[in-house]
Amino acid sequence: MTIASFAVHALPPPRQAVLDARGALSAAVQGRVSTKELDRLAYARDLLPLATVWARQGRVPRPPDAVVWPSTDDDVARVIRLARELRFAVIPFGAGSGVCGGTIATTGGIALDLKRFDSIGPVDPQRRCVDVGAGVMGETLQRRLEARGWTLGHFPASIAMSTVGGWLATRSAGQLSARYGKIEDMVLSVSGVLGTGERFETPERPFTGPDFAQLVMGSEGTLCTFTSARLRVHPRPEARVFRAFDFSSVERGLDAVRRLFREGLRPAAVHLADPFASAFDAQQPGASKSSFLPGLAGALATRALSWPRLLNPLGRVVTKCRLTVMFEGDVKHAEAEDRGAAAACLSMGAVDLGEGPGRHWFRHRNDSNFRRAETGASFDTMEVSAPWERVLDVYQRVRAAAGSFAVVLCHFSHASADGCALDFTFLGSAVAIDAAEARSEHLWRTVLGAATSAGANVSHHHGIGLQKARAYQDSLGEGRHALATLKRLFDPDGIMNPGKLGL
Amino acid sequence: MTIASFAVHALPPPRQAVLDARGALSAAVQGRVSTKELDRLAYARDLLPLATVWARQGRVPRPPDAVVWPSTDDDVARVIRLARELRFAVIPFGAGSGVCGGTIATTGGIALDLKRFDSIGPVDPQRRCVDVGAGVMGETLQRRLEARGWTLGHFPASIAMSTVGGWLATRSAGQLSARYGKIEDMVLSVSGVLGTGERFETPERPFTGPDFAQLVMGSEGTLCTFTSARLRVHPRPEARVFRAFDFSSVERGLDAVRRLFREGLRPAAVHLADPFASAFDAQQPGASKSSFLPGLAGALATRALSWPRLLNPLGRVVTKCRLTVMFEGDVKHAEAEDRGAAAACLSMGAVDLGEGPGRHWFRHRNDSNFRRAETGASFDTMEVSAPWERVLDVYQRVRAAAGSFAVVLCHFSHASADGCALDFTFLGSAVAIDAAEARSEHLWRTVLGAATSAGANVSHHHGIGLQKARAYQDSLGEGRHALATLKRLFDPDGIMNPGKLGL
Repeated sequence: MTIASFAVHALPPPRQAVLDARGALSAAVQGRVSTKELDRLAYARDLLPLATVWARQGRVPRPPDAVVWPSTDDDVARVIRLARELRFAVIPFGAGSGVCGGTIATTGGIALDLKRFDSIGPVDPQRRCVDVGAGVMGETLQRRLEARGWTLGHFPASIAMSTVGGWLATRSAGQLSARYGKIEDMVLSVSGVLGTGERFETPERPFTGPDFAQLVMGSEGTLCTFTSARLRVHPRPEARVFRAFDFSSVERGLDAVRRLFREGLRPAAVHLADPFASAFDAQQPGASKSSFLPGLAGALATRALSWPRLLNPLGRVVTKCRLTVMFEGDVKHAEAEDRGAAAACLSMGAVDLGEGPGRHWFRHRNDSNFRRAETGASFDTMEVSAPWERVLDVYQRVRAAAGSFAVVLCHFSHASADGCALDFTFLGSAVAIDAAEARSEHLWRTVLGAATSAGANVSHHHGIGLQKARAYQDSLGEGRHALATLKRLFDPDGIMNPGKLGL
Repeated sequence: MTIASFAVHALPPPRQAVLDARGALSAAVQGRVSTKELDRLAYARDLLPLATVWARQGRVPRPPDAVVWPSTDDDVARVIRLARELRFAVIPFGAGSGVCGGTIATTGGIALDLKRFDSIGPVDPQRRCVDVGAGVMGETLQRRLEARGWTLGHFPASIAMSTVGGWLATRSAGQLSARYGKIEDMVLSVSGVLGTGERFETPERPFTGPDFAQLVMGSEGTLCTFTSARLRVHPRPEARVFRAFDFSSVERGLDAVRRLFREGLRPAAVHLADPFASAFDAQQPGASKSSFLPGLAGALATRALSWPRLLNPLGRVVTKCRLTVMFEGDVKHAEAEDRGAAAACLSMGAVDLGEGPGRHWFRHRNDSNFRRAETGASFDTMEVSAPWERVLDVYQRVRAAAGSFAVVLCHFSHASADGCALDFTFLGSAVAIDAAEARSEHLWRTVLGAATSAGANVSHHHGIGLQKARAYQDSLGEGRHALATLKRLFDPDGIMNPGKLGL
């Protein structure tokens, strides 16, 4: 079954069984239920790139039959118990910015919007933690913390359009994950409701005993829904020190990043762009004047994308890679670490570009999320991760696999001592809309297969959803039985977000 | 119910129900079953210090009714299914070196010895991992890996008498955990059998999706038994660089350790001894000639322990604290980090003692485990952990709480950027045997209460067992319901290692 099977041409009316249960649903959530077409349409989609193709075809993802807005854990428990009884699916919903189809209502059912769980508690300065509701928007939380002198350290590109609950559900990573970790590293405890209808609150980050939170995080709504979390916070950094370097090849850039971690440096952000991505980044509005290859990227983005076979080999000629490194913390340490990074990079043949490009990257790092849809060109993105010894092979095999039908850009980020994430962007020319979908599916099958056969993990922080469900299950090997056991135990009626993670 | 309730004066015969099931048990494990008194006695105890008191009273912990030695996952599954059917307890058993009573057969039942799961697979040099059976002894594994040029990096004090399965069950930490992490950080995947009788194998360390391994690790046999694990390995380090320092107080020593981590240094081992522990360590056979306070520790260990009220205040006079730091890896980096650590410590007023004391500590670090029982004096140990801001308070409150009836020694170790473990040793004079048990129970209640009220976690790496079951449950707060839910799901008949973790 392809993802496209979940797209429909006309919005079906809510199923009669759901309409019949409307009274009970309404009672469960103090009247905050809707079966209106507009609401169901709004909750039918996330930011799955393929859904923009569907939109141009007049299609939408299969919508939920109803939307509810619970306010308390008890509300949520009541909805789930009702859904168990009546065998409706329940799809926990944050802000809908996922890119893997993780909230598509594959079998209809009830979209459970958590946004009323919007409380942000006081920061406990001794314990350095804060209690927040699962529906709190990322940007709101970070601003509130900063105003009080703290930071969560979690800056996903989606921060303006994603919630704490969505982060927990997908094991989100932010742009400063090299220093602060992924969201699962920031969590002290989480609470919510299981697919059995039972409420849960996990023990605080245990040194001993089972770590229940690590089990439910990443479950993408298939085992439970989250309602709140206790998160670790840090003093707002006194300083941020940026530096960018040009390397003469991807290999050298990757070697340098690995070396920074081997030397024990703890950059907050490390971001290496491959040659095409470096050229493309330099074209972004507001890019620093030191940008190189001014003509190429504009062409890539808007005109010449019909000729990937011609453009991709340019990667052998255009070889400059831009590495951006940022340290934060107290001034003295950040500057000392910056000097250490500069010494390491220069000894490996890098050209030091100073702080300008890094500051620019940081200021504009999320802009492209809002602009990509405007270019007219087709695009898709895929992120995977790999241990250091496999990163280059994954990169090369994905480029080879996609090279005949898309121009391939790659950013290497979320680095650690073990490895890094690879964020690919595939730019293709605008094609007849009927061909676009087949091309997207072919692209995904081809490039994800190439990545995993080179030893990549199927995802790093975007999650699985429907998009990578099959690849994820394949990657589990015998472990799929453990997951199936869990699913059976925590969601005995199979009502929680059906189809995601391949469950 | 106190732990002592699980001690019996005479070995009861196996229950008739178990004898009746002997044929079925035997069939499940190809005849490897015993109900002999000697075997049942051998599996009745672990290294719970209180059990040495019982031994002197002619008492033993409640023994299992039978011991089985399965060889395959299917054997284990058959035993567990049979136990479910007949409502026998199943107690997974590694090498019996736990110190919390984690393998005491509180309700009799079947001791499930995993030692036949003794395979050590080839090291995958690309992926840097190895598959090992749960029954492999730590020392055997480490020697085998070193012979091939690798290391696991896991060196618990119990390495000569503990198994991989025991490490997984208790979330074990080794002496080099500051660099390599705890066992749960080294695990790529684990496999075993749940209390339902279902086999499981977890997905490899997932960036996305649930992390099932983190759930079952630390469960101390209450949810499942482990049969094998895939563990991360590292190239055997080229060099080890040692250095020791004397600080003028515990506060200064702790400040220095925290600072090393804040500066991004990654020591393999960090070990700070409080004044009494420093004096005691200096008395160990083979201690370097630079030892100070030569007379005190000998007295502590053998003669003067009847006067804790007199000795403990000496801690205000005897204030020198010994910090031992070790870096490992390639020579250049280890030496550079060592210089960084020296600069930081000297700037904080430390006296540099060079490499001798550190090398000595490393060589003799496990000796005392084999010698403590010979001193005649009573002793007990307790380890807890705390975030940095609470470490000093935990230390002081435990000393105050125990000070009237034991001489208190403390080692601070397993440090990270977040906090460290506190390993307390309580030395008391030999008392009438009938008073010893009451004193031990009083000590535990008092000191563990003092530690947790100051914000300590109940354990760092020794586990919970029976010893800390109540304190662990208290520490869970609302999280205890999550744990109870898990227990019900994974062990519906409550047969897995009853009583441990308070389950």
